[in-house]
Amino acid sequence: MKTVITIGREYGSGGRLVAKKLSEALDIPFYDKEVIQGVVKKTGFAENFVRDAERRPTNSFIYDLYFSAQSLSTQDQVFIAQSGVIKDLASKGGCVIVGRCADYILREHKDLLRVFIYAPMEERIRRSVEEYGDKESNMEAFVARKDKQRASYYNYFTSVRWGDRKSYDLCINSALGLDTAVELIRTAALAREGQSK
Amino acid sequence: MKTVITIGREYGSGGRLVAKKLSEALDIPFYDKEVIQGVVKKTGFAENFVRDAERRPTNSFIYDLYFSAQSLSTQDQVFIAQSGVIKDLASKGGCVIVGRCADYILREHKDLLRVFIYAPMEERIRRSVEEYGDKESNMEAFVARKDKQRASYYNYFTSVRWGDRKSYDLCINSALGLDTAVELIRTAALAREGQSK
Repeated sequence: MKTVITIGREYGSGGRLVAKKLSEALDIPFYDKEVIQGVVKKTGFAENFVRDAERRPTNSFIYDLYFSAQSLSTQDQVFIAQSGVIKDLASKGGCVIVGRCADYILREHKDLLRVFIYAPMEERIRRSVEEYGDKESNMEAFVARKDKQRASYYNYFTSVRWGDRKSYDLCINSALGLDTAVELIRTAALAREGQSK
Repeated sequence: MKTVITIGREYGSGGRLVAKKLSEALDIPFYDKEVIQGVVKKTGFAENFVRDAERRPTNSFIYDLYFSAQSLSTQDQVFIAQSGVIKDLASKGGCVIVGRCADYILREHKDLLRVFIYAPMEERIRRSVEEYGDKESNMEAFVARKDKQRASYYNYFTSVRWGDRKSYDLCINSALGLDTAVELIRTAALAREGQSK
């Protein structure tokens, strides 16, 4: 499979578990924040990426971008390094990537399926308490704050809005069931795979 | 099948065709605006519905609603009559209903799958010109205006927003292909059907 599946998700929607199960069902790699940051650290991708960029011709937009990285904030530099890792991983073939603005970073990628998972607030609070073990006095505010963090990160680094269906190929309410969500994405991925042959 | 599938859609997304194909694939009835208005006219549903409501106990909210219908605008009365027809059709078993705020009208219905179909603007303009035969000098404005009409109708009669993913179980970008969209909704409907047994 060469289709790269990106999965954005609301906090407590179970989207990460859907992504994990999906990667197992399709037998393709699963990448999340931890994996991607691990690759960044392990390979010194940030340094290599900037050094490589410096060798490019000066009329390159990419060159300008990375050259200017030297005056960027740490957060921005980490984002650039992560973007490099994500593009590198995607170039290796089909995989599932959770979060990290991967849908936006890979928007020019030929074989891409962009998914967003959401759920009703009651369901998200239940999962947050029972499955993630969150303990907060106001759970609704806690869950909403978690979403706000994700939205801020996404909206800062992209030109589109987090969770806006227009940015995705498929948006699934996980109240349909996590296994149903996996099956729906698998169906869409196989269809996309067939189209691109 | 007892699952009632409601399909909202952007203009030019091919959502109506998806709904039609889906009803054929699942071998269940297909209802759209024309069918529903036809039932309203044929059965004098509006008159019957109001008359029936008048026989209910006076502490009924529904009674109050329909009693007050006599001072409602024609548009509101048509909506109430259509709502009655939609609830009546849904009570008969599995079917596909396009538009008409059916997802909202049936929100308390036990076996319900709420779908929204959308597509990128370029694709919608192409379909509008090539398949619907629309001829306008500014196609983008024309398509946007059609959506605005749908949103106005929906937002006037419901307490939620047209096209907001939170109001749906599944949102599909029909750029994935109309047949893929049919297959995805069929998969979700069969899963929902299995859950409710």
